[in-house]
Parts: sequence; C-alpha cells; structure tokens
Amino acid sequence: MSSLKENALKMHRDSKGKISVKSKVKVTNAEELSLAYSPGVAEPCLEISQDKEKAYLYTMKSQMVGVISNGTAVLGLGNIGAQAALPVMEGKAVLFKNFADVDAFPICLDTTDPDQLIDTVQMLAPNFGGINLEDIAAPDCFYVEEKLKQLLDIPVFHDDQHGTAIVTVAGLVNALKLVDKQMSEIKVVVNGAGAAGIAIVRLLNQFGVKQIVICDSQGAIYRGREQGMNPIKQTIAKETNDQKETGDLKAVMKNADVFIGVSLANLVDQDMVRSMNRDPIIFAMANPNPEIMPEDALAAGARVVGTGRSDYPNQVNNVLAFPGIFKGALTVMASEINEPMKIAAVHAIAELIDKEDLSETYIIPDPFDPRVAQAVGQAVAKAAQESGVASRN
Amino acid sequence: MSSLKENALKMHRDSKGKISVKSKVKVTNAEELSLAYSPGVAEPCLEISQDKEKAYLYTMKSQMVGVISNGTAVLGLGNIGAQAALPVMEGKAVLFKNFADVDAFPICLDTTDPDQLIDTVQMLAPNFGGINLEDIAAPDCFYVEEKLKQLLDIPVFHDDQHGTAIVTVAGLVNALKLVDKQMSEIKVVVNGAGAAGIAIVRLLNQFGVKQIVICDSQGAIYRGREQGMNPIKQTIAKETNDQKETGDLKAVMKNADVFIGVSLANLVDQDMVRSMNRDPIIFAMANPNPEIMPEDALAAGARVVGTGRSDYPNQVNNVLAFPGIFKGALTVMASEINEPMKIAAVHAIAELIDKEDLSETYIIPDPFDPRVAQAVGQAVAKAAQESGVASRN
Repeated sequence: MSSLKENALKMHRDSKGKISVKSKVKVTNAEELSLAYSPGVAEPCLEISQDKEKAYLYTMKSQMVGVISNGTAVLGLGNIGAQAALPVMEGKAVLFKNFADVDAFPICLDTTDPDQLIDTVQMLAPNFGGINLEDIAAPDCFYVEEKLKQLLDIPVFHDDQHGTAIVTVAGLVNALKLVDKQMSEIKVVVNGAGAAGIAIVRLLNQFGVKQIVICDSQGAIYRGREQGMNPIKQTIAKETNDQKETGDLKAVMKNADVFIGVSLANLVDQDMVRSMNRDPIIFAMANPNPEIMPEDALAAGARVVGTGRSDYPNQVNNVLAFPGIFKGALTVMASEINEPMKIAAVHAIAELIDKEDLSETYIIPDPFDPRVAQAVGQAVAKAAQESGVASRN
Repeated sequence: MSSLKENALKMHRDSKGKISVKSKVKVTNAEELSLAYSPGVAEPCLEISQDKEKAYLYTMKSQMVGVISNGTAVLGLGNIGAQAALPVMEGKAVLFKNFADVDAFPICLDTTDPDQLIDTVQMLAPNFGGINLEDIAAPDCFYVEEKLKQLLDIPVFHDDQHGTAIVTVAGLVNALKLVDKQMSEIKVVVNGAGAAGIAIVRLLNQFGVKQIVICDSQGAIYRGREQGMNPIKQTIAKETNDQKETGDLKAVMKNADVFIGVSLANLVDQDMVRSMNRDPIIFAMANPNPEIMPEDALAAGARVVGTGRSDYPNQVNNVLAFPGIFKGALTVMASEINEPMKIAAVHAIAELIDKEDLSETYIIPDPFDPRVAQAVGQAVAKAAQESGVASRN
C-alpha cells in the first residue's frame, strides 16, 4: 500500500496532471490564423447565433463531456472539497479518453449549495454535449440530477448512481442465468441508501424485480418509518418493500436471493449468507474492504460473488458503462440518457459474455475487454434513436 | 470574403471543433488504472485536502488556463450569447496551445449578470492556474475583472483590455524611437472608451504619458462631463485630460502626437491627420476596417501607421502578448498579472526588434515570430518574481 501511495503520487507529479488540451487545427501562418481565429471564426459564430443546434456542427460541443463535481463525496474520502477532488475528475476524463476516445474535461465547482451547483452547470452547458456528474453527496445528488435533467437539453448522468447500477444489474442478469432464477421471482436486499443504492433499486424495478428491501444504517426502509428518513428515502419506501419488512440487515437477509452492498465493510457475516435462499448471489461492493470477503461468502454457500475490487473475480467497475454510454449518446446527439438507454447498456454488458464462457467467476466482462465501450455505445445509440431522444441517426 | 466564409465553415465542420482532450497517462492495465484512478488517486486527493497549494503539484491546475466568456461582446459581432461565442473561445485555446504550448480550455457561460459571472468564475477557479477573460462587454468587464482579481489567488486577465494595450504600447515604444519623442512629452488621443481604450489609457499612464485625451461617441471625456458617462468613464476622466479639453475627435486631435483608435471605421480623415503634431503616429485598429486606411494616413503625413489587419504592416495582434504572459505567469505560479508584469511584456515585445531593423513598417514583431512567446514569458516570469507575486522560482 505504501508503494501504491508513492507510485500514485509520483505518477501525478511527473505528469503534472493527467490531461492536457490538444489543438485539432494548425495555426502556423496568417491564412490558418484567419480561419481558426479572426476574421474567419466569425462565420461559425454567426451560424450558431441563428441556430444553436449548429454548435454541434462547428464546435467541440458534439465531442465533449463535462465531468462535474463539487467534491462533497469523493471516493471513500467524503467531503474533501472541489480542489482536492480534481485528481479524481481528471482521472475520470482519462478513463473517458482511454476507454472510449471520448473527450471529457474535469470541472470541480467550489460550492456545496445544490441550487448554486444546478445554476452553474446550467451556465456551463453550452460547452458540452453531455454532463457526467460525479462524487456529489446524497441526498443532494438526486435533486441536482433531477433538476438538471429537466433544465438541460443535453444528457445529464450521475455516474455514482447509474454507472454502478448498470454494471451491477448486468452482473445480476448473468448470475441469474447460472442459478436459473427470474428477476420477477427473486428477493433482493440492497444495503446502502446513497447514490448507488437508490439507483440500483430503481434499475432493478425496471428489470421487473418485485421484492426489494433497501436498508440504511437503521435497517430496512419501509413505508411509515419515521427515524432517519429524507425525501429520497420517503420516495424509495413507496417503491420497495411491499411486505413492509422491518428490522436490521440480518433480519431482512433471511430468504433473500441476492445481496447487494454499497455501504461499509464487514456488515455481512457467514450466518447471514447461510440464512439466504438457495444459491445466494452476493455483490459486496464496499471499497476497499467489502461487506464480506469473497472467500468467506463462498465458504458460507454463496454461489456467485462480485466486488468492487480488481483482485477478485467479477469486479463491478463503472468503467464498463460510462465511457460507452456517453459515446453512444454523443454519437446520436441524444438529448438525455433515459431508462431504455440504461437498460440497453445493461444488456450490452451482460451479453458480452457468451453462454459457454459464463461461470461463477465470470459474470462481468473484464474492464479492459476492448469490446465493451463499442458494444455499449452502439446499444445506447440505438436505444436513444428508438426512444426518440436522438437528434442524429 | 465568400471564400473565407466557406473555408472557415468547412474547417470548423471537418475538425468538429478545434480542441480535444489528451490523456497524459496510459490506462491499459489494472496497475495503471490503480494509479490514475481508484485507489491510487486518493493519495493526491488527500495531499491536496491538507494543503490546497499541492494542486499545483498533482493536477492540471499548474498548466491550465480557463478562457472564459459570456459572449456579450464577441469580436465585432456584439452580444451573440454563450453558445455562439464558443468558436472564438476554442480559437483562443488553439492560439494558447500553438503559440506558447499553454493548455487552455474554453468556457462559455450562459449569463449576462456580472455578479453571477463573478460567482461562477470563482467556483471554477480550482481547475485553473489562470483565467483569461474574453469578449465580455464594457463596462461590466471592468467590474468583473476587478472583482475577480480581489477574490482569486490566481491570475485574472481580461485580454480585450490588457492584451490589446500591451501590444499597442509596445508598438508605440518603438514608434517613438523613430520620431525621437519621449512618452512624457507626447499628447495621445485614444478614440473608444470600451475595454481596449480604457486599458490603453491606463497603461500609457504607467509609461509616463502625461497628456491623454480619451473620446467616446460624444467626443472628449473630461472631468465634469455629464452626458453619456458611466462609472469607468467617471474614473478615467479623473486620470486623463488635465487640460479639460472638450469637443469632438477632430477638435482634440489638433496637435496630438499619437492617435489610437479602438472603435469604428472611417472616423478619421486626412485633415485630422494633418492637424496633428509633426510625425504623426496612427494606430487605427477598428476591425475589419480601420478608422483611416493606412495609405490615406501616410499620404496625409503620418509617419507610422499600425492597424489590426494582417494585410498591412505593424499589425497589433493580441497573440503577441497573451500566450507568453500566461506562460510566464504559470511557470512561476504567479498569483496575479500585475502592472510590472504587463510593463515587462511591453518591453519584451518592443525589444524583439533590433535598432537596425526598426523602421516605419516594422515597429511590431510578426505574430509568427517564434521568439515572441518565449521572450514575453521569460520577462513576465522575472517581473512576477521581482514584484513578489511568484510562488515558484
């Protein structure tokens, strides 16, 4: 770990930041200058001033994603602020570029006021063909994303929510094939009611899962619970837990088919795994230490285990989703990233694993599988067209 | 012109915008991913959360300029808005890169409220080592720049003001050598009380010019004038025109040594040039058509003529100043671009023309002279250090 620390610091120091700007045009003489800048540049300006859509034709907008954060929930580090969040947002831009050749620029905004954040992203929108929100604390993140989706005519996607949800559900789609169960018949327990937990629950709903119990630190969330609620938990209480299960995580995990953890290390023990339905599926994604170590879960009878870690099989890594999703959205000038596009991304990721290759240790493609971004991009672009949010075919 | 229009549109269309993002690090395997992103990226985040200055060490901040506009005064096109201004800001970023290898990113902000603009740039500051304000309408531009200079600990530089002023005064420094006059003894008439005019007047003051009359569309600005004033004109009235000259441009140009035009075409005729002191110096920088055509000015006795055009000698082109100025400021992590740094830039530009090469048609270096950005950068860095605003030697 000490060596990782030193290597990471050295790499960041040596590169002086991880992204730079590249000029796509040459300016080496007066003629080139007159095209790229004054007076020629006035022509695309005039075209766009008459029809804003032409910005997609003449500017970087069609190629550029804004990676925007206020630094209030950075990795496992919490609210470290905009300046300290910059290495992560640069890293995200690096992943966009390396995994899908999408141009992305990091923007860390020095504000913790969600309305100011919304106003600012709105003002920034002319520059971008899509907005990837990142590392914004729950529950503000839900309000910020919801509001921006209403206000903007470009895709807005909070990756901590939807990226995680999409890859998790893709893994679940494949895991269910192994245990021969249907989405409509399983009981899923999600632990953690933050950005990822809420989005996972909602995507599971889209996939027809009928029995979902979501827990926070006070146990199961149910209609009528009064302690430790907030508006999003109030809403999610109505969308889940039809049976009004109460009690702690241990209580609700009984007879569950699937456990999905997106909160803290070591919350699940072997007895809890043993209390689940046959062939338990465990996604223990707390980072860096999962809710239960894979070897312990397997020893207690888990059939399939996924984590957030690269040193175990079945890594749930957002990089499988967001580069391709934005690639697809930009390709067709999508005005939003809607549910059909997310669902298409889930299937695209899941289907990269052929039936004959599918196994307990291979339900999710490797992050470096070169097919992923293209497959996701194509599926998302097609779904955008079919759902009527694409401006370009 | 039609061909320029077509070529400019084609170039912008073909390149799909003029800048892209480049990843400075490779992410092709799990180890590289663990350094550039999770978990290794947490290390620089933690370092910066403890000491914000370390952002200069570990992020793009030390290399990156924000080119920020609200699109309220774009080229000669006026208030065309943020979206339509984007080609210009991308162009500016291209010039930063091509002329000084400085990374710059365009940010067009969809607001016309100066206070909202200020708040937003403040929120954006963590990402940048310097802010180049661009194409913001006067008089708001003065307030916005002034306020941001107070609020931010990184350089803020409104190029329409200071870039133009620096190159103009550099040209004047050399022109005065040819006519053998001193700054302290000349009378200068500046026509145009917008961003460039005001900044030129103030820089001339720094250079010891004692007799300056600035005119707007209502003629000379003087203490006590009541029509058509605004706060910046009130202020500039106190800093100029000690003799309280009144009347129109024609009236105040009598016996002037230097005319500097930054407003509209065709405002100066040959009689006005003839009314000037011996060896008139004319900077007729209205674009694309100058206040008086160079051939007409010369025929009326002007000794030296500069314009904004590339098809005449002595082009006053901001690209001679801003790339090197930011290069120098970033190199030493300057907290501002102060008067000594601007003055150093003026001298660096002027001194690139040797005494033996200096002539009526060569008072300003060619924009593509490869020595310019380096000379300006070094001079500006040195001035930053000597004036105590550099954090790095």
